[in-house]
Amino acid sequence: MTHTFDMVVLGGGIGGYTAAIRAAQLGKNVAIVEQDKLGGTCLHRGCIPSKALLRSAEVFALMKDSDKFGIGAEAVTLDFSKVASRKDAVVEQLYSGLQFLMKKHKITVFQGKGRLIGPSIFSPRSGTVSVEQGEDDILTLVPEKVVIATGSRPRSLPGLETDGVTILNSDEALRLEKLPASAVIIGGGVIGVEWASLLSDFGVQVTVVEFAPRLLPNEDEDVSRELERLLKKRGVSVRTGTKVITESIRKHEGGVTLNVEHREEQAELSAEIALVCVGRQANVEGIGLENTDVKVEGGFIRVNDSMQTAELHIYAVGDCIGGLQLAHAAAHEGLTAAEHAWDQQPHKVEPHRVPRCVYSRPETASIGWTEREAKEQGRDVKVSKVHFRALGKAIVLGETDGFIKVVADKETNDLLGVHMIGPHVTDYISEAALAQLLDATPWEIGQTIHPHPTLSELLGEAMLAVDGRSINT
Amino acid sequence: MTHTFDMVVLGGGIGGYTAAIRAAQLGKNVAIVEQDKLGGTCLHRGCIPSKALLRSAEVFALMKDSDKFGIGAEAVTLDFSKVASRKDAVVEQLYSGLQFLMKKHKITVFQGKGRLIGPSIFSPRSGTVSVEQGEDDILTLVPEKVVIATGSRPRSLPGLETDGVTILNSDEALRLEKLPASAVIIGGGVIGVEWASLLSDFGVQVTVVEFAPRLLPNEDEDVSRELERLLKKRGVSVRTGTKVITESIRKHEGGVTLNVEHREEQAELSAEIALVCVGRQANVEGIGLENTDVKVEGGFIRVNDSMQTAELHIYAVGDCIGGLQLAHAAAHEGLTAAEHAWDQQPHKVEPHRVPRCVYSRPETASIGWTEREAKEQGRDVKVSKVHFRALGKAIVLGETDGFIKVVADKETNDLLGVHMIGPHVTDYISEAALAQLLDATPWEIGQTIHPHPTLSELLGEAMLAVDGRSINT
Repeated sequence: MTHTFDMVVLGGGIGGYTAAIRAAQLGKNVAIVEQDKLGGTCLHRGCIPSKALLRSAEVFALMKDSDKFGIGAEAVTLDFSKVASRKDAVVEQLYSGLQFLMKKHKITVFQGKGRLIGPSIFSPRSGTVSVEQGEDDILTLVPEKVVIATGSRPRSLPGLETDGVTILNSDEALRLEKLPASAVIIGGGVIGVEWASLLSDFGVQVTVVEFAPRLLPNEDEDVSRELERLLKKRGVSVRTGTKVITESIRKHEGGVTLNVEHREEQAELSAEIALVCVGRQANVEGIGLENTDVKVEGGFIRVNDSMQTAELHIYAVGDCIGGLQLAHAAAHEGLTAAEHAWDQQPHKVEPHRVPRCVYSRPETASIGWTEREAKEQGRDVKVSKVHFRALGKAIVLGETDGFIKVVADKETNDLLGVHMIGPHVTDYISEAALAQLLDATPWEIGQTIHPHPTLSELLGEAMLAVDGRSINT
Repeated sequence: MTHTFDMVVLGGGIGGYTAAIRAAQLGKNVAIVEQDKLGGTCLHRGCIPSKALLRSAEVFALMKDSDKFGIGAEAVTLDFSKVASRKDAVVEQLYSGLQFLMKKHKITVFQGKGRLIGPSIFSPRSGTVSVEQGEDDILTLVPEKVVIATGSRPRSLPGLETDGVTILNSDEALRLEKLPASAVIIGGGVIGVEWASLLSDFGVQVTVVEFAPRLLPNEDEDVSRELERLLKKRGVSVRTGTKVITESIRKHEGGVTLNVEHREEQAELSAEIALVCVGRQANVEGIGLENTDVKVEGGFIRVNDSMQTAELHIYAVGDCIGGLQLAHAAAHEGLTAAEHAWDQQPHKVEPHRVPRCVYSRPETASIGWTEREAKEQGRDVKVSKVHFRALGKAIVLGETDGFIKVVADKETNDLLGVHMIGPHVTDYISEAALAQLLDATPWEIGQTIHPHPTLSELLGEAMLAVDGRSINT
């Protein structure tokens, strides 16, 4: 059977479904081909379930410390099976919502494996997509435009193959039914840090091993340093600049043992589980790219800043094109692709306007360039750093760790970067994102009236502080 | 003794000390005259201590509901004396910080009662201020500029005089050493609503009586309605459009009884305490205004939009000039006064650029005009309303009540108002404040990349929704 569509999207994750919804809003007839479940990594194996665990971890940590708020409790206990069921219920609720959205926007969803099979019989500038819905059940879709949004999967390292029991990746860790007593986390990037935070709050003895000289190597060094300090204060063992000797890894009855090397000195680490968080690998295989002129470079699909591949009617968005590999970046790329495809002249996707968030305790959030990156560009920078410990609302909350750092250009007064670690920072980084979009200066953000007492007040203070004009800090 | 200063500030609350700090940053020699404690109402009897109580109330409510996060606890109990000591400790910590700030900026603080005593002997365009530091101990200060920042006090109603035990105002309520079993709150404005929320969370049986047809009468009607619904769901009795018959009030051993009238029907209410929250009255008496040409209208000092009184070298800021009577408004007015006094051409203070916050559970936050106000101005409006119940992060937090409403101009596309009720809204209303300052359109805010999953995402959705272009709602 052959169906024609204005647009077919391969992959129903956040990048794909966002492209589909915007195209539908523009009056287009759209289909999504999804081989697993609508919602993709973010909903089923990423952002959402991990944040549900982090929320339970945060509540548990708060309750163990509730005496300082004048609240007593006896026998505060964690029921991990309930924590896990709640996580599943959260996912399920959002999954239902997403299915409803597809109906609302009259988007056809095909369950099956999609594959590009070359130009359509109607025009070389459109394409044909096959959908394998089962053995001998193959549909043919003929769309005018295609969006590839096939996402990514946890990267595996030779010698660190996961078994889902003793050595796990982040997908598998989300299916844990009971907590281990101890864990070695291999990789101190975003995912590794979030797991370190939540497992540690749940009472698991955690060691993080990171090859780079610091946690979150892509973030500002001050943020990395503060995060490391705070994790250590909570009892997490952090080993940066440390290499895992993969061939040393051995599983045994008690769990897993492996050797690591730091400045030519080896150490042996043992834990009940090892969690491998060494990045994500794009899903570019088996989707028929060989039948197209789409280019893959370094494992990622190559696109221009309108999200077009080398075949201009084929777009690609989300984790499969690399870059920041964040859900909201994927969503924005999806919007850009759909709007470009239907002549809406979207904003270009610019990495320095994409906020980056880590939902550890405390959270980190940032946008734009780090101090080092700005200097490497030859900018003459002015920098401020103001601390939550002096802020009324932070003291009220009892969450006074962390700071906000602002990097600006001394000559042009451009806002170059905002780097935050502290309470709820992921919720007000969007103010800095709006500032970046509108090219606002630190002074303008500082002039904005921030309500008192709030956490976002500190963002205003940090902006004024680059010129030595902050009031309360 | 006579001391000369560039600027003397009467009152060391947030409006006054902010003016003082900015003037000091501009190289001026500044004094503050404060008869009580630096920090004023906000720090000692307003924002800060009430938010400390609200934080304990929030933690207590969360803990009673922790089972849904997979955390069990037995015997969750409130120790109100610890709650009250924590509140005092929070205030004390910030008070120390403020004293340090005065030293850092070399601001002289005189403890005593300040009074304007007319033009100085040096120039009719400057003034003289006396400071009574005690009996027979009177200093004379001769400043070039004066800032009046004498603040406000709880308004009292004839027949509802407070005694600090059975009938209390908000100052006195903050000194409660034990919780009552029940409370009637007279007044459903910002302060009444915050007290209703926190007392209810602490297990007190609360009735709120409001003369206006709805709670928070200055906010958008949809917000009032939702807040009333949510408070009622928690067991708070809300009586709007209801008048207190002040002459009916009688104190007795069990507390207080009073009659109220709603649509000509009377009812009798009894409670252990009555809390009178009927607005705030400016402190304009006894400060020597009679020795100046400063005008008082309707109980408030009259100023122009640079905060100048009718004597142009005398400024007034904060609660004593009326208006929104919010801490951050006072601070901004303080900045404006100091900057105008020293020729810095500050932004004018525009009420529609001042966010308004209520720290109840859930919080409300808004900026600009309500839907009704916009229509009364003759604007042709487009309105969106999107709900937290569909938002990933809200579901993750387990806080799904509330919505974000946006009011925009259909013709000009101007953003007219943002009205939020829901989790942590006070922290990201500042994004809307920045948008107002920069005259950003809803579309621009909607184009801003909000990180996923966050609460502020919903603000982006609400902005797109005014044009029917939201993605997830």
